[in-house]
Amino acid sequence: MNLLPGFDDILAAAARIAPYASVTPVLRSAALDTLAGAELHFKCENLQRGGAFKFRGACNAVWSLDDGQAAHGVVTHSSGNHGNALALAAATRGIAAHVVVPEGAVRAKLAAIERAGAILHRCAPTQAAREATCAEVQRATGAELVHPYADTRVMAGQGTLALELLQQAPGLDALITPVGGGGLASGVAIAAHGIDPALDLFGAEPLGADDTAQSLARGTRVTTVVPDTICDGLRALVGERNLDALRTHRVEVITVSDTETIAAMQLLWSELKQVVEVSSATVLAAILKQPQRFAGRRVGVVLTGGNVDLQALPW
Amino acid sequence: MNLLPGFDDILAAAARIAPYASVTPVLRSAALDTLAGAELHFKCENLQRGGAFKFRGACNAVWSLDDGQAAHGVVTHSSGNHGNALALAAATRGIAAHVVVPEGAVRAKLAAIERAGAILHRCAPTQAAREATCAEVQRATGAELVHPYADTRVMAGQGTLALELLQQAPGLDALITPVGGGGLASGVAIAAHGIDPALDLFGAEPLGADDTAQSLARGTRVTTVVPDTICDGLRALVGERNLDALRTHRVEVITVSDTETIAAMQLLWSELKQVVEVSSATVLAAILKQPQRFAGRRVGVVLTGGNVDLQALPW
Repeated sequence: MNLLPGFDDILAAAARIAPYASVTPVLRSAALDTLAGAELHFKCENLQRGGAFKFRGACNAVWSLDDGQAAHGVVTHSSGNHGNALALAAATRGIAAHVVVPEGAVRAKLAAIERAGAILHRCAPTQAAREATCAEVQRATGAELVHPYADTRVMAGQGTLALELLQQAPGLDALITPVGGGGLASGVAIAAHGIDPALDLFGAEPLGADDTAQSLARGTRVTTVVPDTICDGLRALVGERNLDALRTHRVEVITVSDTETIAAMQLLWSELKQVVEVSSATVLAAILKQPQRFAGRRVGVVLTGGNVDLQALPW
Repeated sequence: MNLLPGFDDILAAAARIAPYASVTPVLRSAALDTLAGAELHFKCENLQRGGAFKFRGACNAVWSLDDGQAAHGVVTHSSGNHGNALALAAATRGIAAHVVVPEGAVRAKLAAIERAGAILHRCAPTQAAREATCAEVQRATGAELVHPYADTRVMAGQGTLALELLQQAPGLDALITPVGGGGLASGVAIAAHGIDPALDLFGAEPLGADDTAQSLARGTRVTTVVPDTICDGLRALVGERNLDALRTHRVEVITVSDTETIAAMQLLWSELKQVVEVSSATVLAAILKQPQRFAGRRVGVVLTGGNVDLQALPW
């Protein structure tokens, strides 16, 4: 299950999720173009079902199951957008979704996952407890594990947004996504180079969780980084296969501080008029930090999600 | 100049502004549909050039001038979205824009108007001073006055958004806009009924500036209301001709409290993921306040603008 998807898998995923996922709009801002000195085409996955790109991967995984497998439901461990996306995706097929959530997870997010129809399983807030509880649910129910990023079907699903973006904004020179576990970045890399192998690919990573940048620099996967960043969607260590894909597709990672990201988040809200979560703003922060890499070019910019707590804004 | 536009004027305006104005997207939210018990189609004028629908009217006015008139430029009094829109519209034609602004206007808004290329003229913060200064600028420069709402060309321009919306979301049963001076509501009414005379039209007005609701109830224009509302875009008294149009087109006005509007604003941010200004949220507040009027229907909902100060949110 941990092999990288091929371009064909991504095309198949696009057809599979088409009845359920939104074709999200691509928005522009004259003010942001001026600021960046580049032509920015924002792919607004904050407007995707569930408010994040995660629905694409979860939906592809759910609809990849044969009827026998599907009858046992799906399971994952995630208190964030992936858990919510899997619940929504399972609902489109009328099957059970089990979501393992650590004690201490944000109550509003758990409520959203429950509203989407999932069965919550609480566990201690450690990686070991998550995995053990997940395995337990699998044994008890026969549910299929859908990992947030180290899953071929999930990566293929995330890649579909690049197919859409390159159709909506033809002739792009470069494309940038945030990097966390790498499911999005690798899916997008395979999809984008399947259409245009000359496209320059970039990733944006928080300085406080820069394991991908370190791994690419050293040529081997660095697993010693202890994430310390406000970007809650980008704290996961990059997966082994995801890292392989980033290397193969020559994805350059630009690191940004939380302060730079928060400033970029405010720009996306005030100029693009889009509510995006802090992790999404890393991409604009990266462009504004290293403008010479993007100057005068047509750049696809992936805004990953818009699930925020309006009572706890970071400024 | 204060006659109402006809449907033909609105069609002509649409052709006139097409090279400059954005065709703004229509967005949906499953969560908001569930909450309202209706099918809501949000016309996102927060994504219009300048961040508000006002660009449509200003642009139509600027490009309605013959070359001789245009050479002398345009003038208006507005420290808000109309001033900014007129500056942007004048720039598309390469002519001067004079904007009369009262002392005490929000510095950020004035900076935006100046950035858009306008010449600012300061005056005392009274209606009399605004009009006197405007007249002075007209005498000195020969500039054409473009009033924010009591102007046929402006009303025709604003009406173009209804043409777009009815094309993007065919088969609507009802349509709702905020009501301030009435330029938007009357332009939209004329456009919408030009396409579908059976459409039910609604306006949303702050309780603290409910001169339109009072005027329609009494059958005569009420001018004694002293505006007291957080909705800074809706403080103007309804214009005489604008009121005529609302009456002719049987526009029903629903009044909402600022508390209801702020709650609706948070829903638009958190569920639709759109940054909209507080005045824009009156429409959703009105739908949620009187759901029986909209239950089970397909409703066009006009979100007028998204120019907000992120450092001074009303919650």
